[in-house]
Amino acid sequence: MANILKFLLPKDRVFYSLFEKAGENIEKIAEKLTQLVNEPDFNVRNTIIKEMEDLEHQNDELTHQIFVELGKNFITPFDREDIHSLATSLDDIADFIYAAGKNINFYKVDPNDQGILKMATVIYDAVLAVNEAVLELRNLKNTQKIVECVIKINSIENQADDIFDLSIEKLFDSDVDAKTLIKKREIYQILELATDKCEDAGNVIESIVVKYA
Amino acid sequence: MANILKFLLPKDRVFYSLFEKAGENIEKIAEKLTQLVNEPDFNVRNTIIKEMEDLEHQNDELTHQIFVELGKNFITPFDREDIHSLATSLDDIADFIYAAGKNINFYKVDPNDQGILKMATVIYDAVLAVNEAVLELRNLKNTQKIVECVIKINSIENQADDIFDLSIEKLFDSDVDAKTLIKKREIYQILELATDKCEDAGNVIESIVVKYA
Amino acid sequence: MANILKFLLPKDRVFYSLFEKAGENIEKIAEKLTQLVNEPDFNVRNTIIKEMEDLEHQNDELTHQIFVELGKNFITPFDREDIHSLATSLDDIADFIYAAGKNINFYKVDPNDQGILKMATVIYDAVLAVNEAVLELRNLKNTQKIVECVIKINSIENQADDIFDLSIEKLFDSDVDAKTLIKKREIYQILELATDKCEDAGNVIESIVVKYA
Repeated sequence: MANILKFLLPKDRVFYSLFEKAGENIEKIAEKLTQLVNEPDFNVRNTIIKEMEDLEHQNDELTHQIFVELGKNFITPFDREDIHSLATSLDDIADFIYAAGKNINFYKVDPNDQGILKMATVIYDAVLAVNEAVLELRNLKNTQKIVECVIKINSIENQADDIFDLSIEKLFDSDVDAKTLIKKREIYQILELATDKCEDAGNVIESIVVKYA
Repeated sequence: MANILKFLLPKDRVFYSLFEKAGENIEKIAEKLTQLVNEPDFNVRNTIIKEMEDLEHQNDELTHQIFVELGKNFITPFDREDIHSLATSLDDIADFIYAAGKNINFYKVDPNDQGILKMATVIYDAVLAVNEAVLELRNLKNTQKIVECVIKINSIENQADDIFDLSIEKLFDSDVDAKTLIKKREIYQILELATDKCEDAGNVIESIVVKYA
Repeated sequence: MANILKFLLPKDRVFYSLFEKAGENIEKIAEKLTQLVNEPDFNVRNTIIKEMEDLEHQNDELTHQIFVELGKNFITPFDREDIHSLATSLDDIADFIYAAGKNINFYKVDPNDQGILKMATVIYDAVLAVNEAVLELRNLKNTQKIVECVIKINSIENQADDIFDLSIEKLFDSDVDAKTLIKKREIYQILELATDKCEDAGNVIESIVVKYA
């Protein structure tokens, strides 16, 4: 939005715009991850990773802006600690998704792996639900919708736990060498952490609803 | 307690009951862990792990209730941030104890291992001390008792560090294959984290005593 | 400072002294780390590690004092949450630097390794910048100086990320056995975490500047 318009807005409205931009941003980065894991060419994957890095930097910038606004605004639309936690969770989601993508090429791991493919899909689903919930924050009228999103996020996180357990079990039962095992295990862990952070974001949004709706 | 009774309680009293229930709960889950590590039969261990999972879910529910009450109550018996930190620590204790138990069977690791057995014992001792300190929060009269509990928790956490170091050293000096090494190392790490979280709980309780007693 | 003098100070001034002592302390421990990684003799390294342990304990004590003061003082020079976060970051820096040093001998890893040597140097540089920024907190007049320190810390953290990636890449491409790989990887991770915590400290200081300068 143009800077001139910004001054016409009630000051605390700025938070909604920043959260919505961050939500849009993590949706894009999660989409890039699903592209990446379905891309067989190492170099094309490198190009996608570069795009993910740009999105991750944009998210850093948005998080930074939220913290700056939090420092400047005495009045905030909801608890300062909730704003801080939500910004941190959204930032963490972007960080872990980017880290997963980056490490796939860094470790030269073939993403054509059942665990990795399924994880990328559930991360995308979880991020869509997070983004939907974020969009409802602005008016907080549709509590039912937010509650549904939070339930969905938690259920996806449980799926991710199961995919993780199954992938780790398969990995340890396979005859891969120690190096490959360590690399793949780390990628599964990072992917699973991305869904944990979606759950964190969902929990903060739920606690905002409890207090303000 | 019956819902009807709840309304007769001063609203901020609800936190004590919830913390006491969580304290009781982590004592039960820590007891289950000592049973588990002393149980040679894989299938009996599975039954114990199922019971631990139920206790862990109950703790999630209690933590959730504490956060809901925190959102609803303007007046709290101590600082909101301390209530939040204590609830989080108690939840983390339950999470790590359950994760340790679950991973023993998941990784098919024989718990009849000096490091694992000793860790389970010190975790139980630490949890007993946490629970004792939690029970004193309600009146905050017996500061001396709380201080003793906190000192005990910290001393147990130091013991856990030593057990961890010794176990890792033995593990790396042994001729186990890489997979077993990675599995056992992770179990030691989770067990050690459980005692770290007991220390966190002790630190929050200590800071409450400093402010309110 | 003598206890008698302490009472003549405005109560909220006590935080500056404590932060400055913690800053001095992490500078000393980071200096010890650079000594340690350049020391070929295992036993001399053990002596240095003992000194690092003492410094780490001193930092624990300072952090504890900051939390106690935070509990006692209603008026603080900046936001309570910023004081808490800064104390925690400085404590974490000391913890990770000490842990890195300790694990070098614990795992019997030769510190004469390009990754480890470079990491120790950038950690020292990052800590110097953190300390410089901490010293400016007392009057908050020289905002430009603080901003420069924060930019420097962030740039060093980026360097540390690159050193980490390069070291891990070299490690996985080498023909070391799984045990050595796991040990070295853990040391690189701990060293990298130390620079992350410097970045955290920088971020808190930046947010204080935004609010109060």
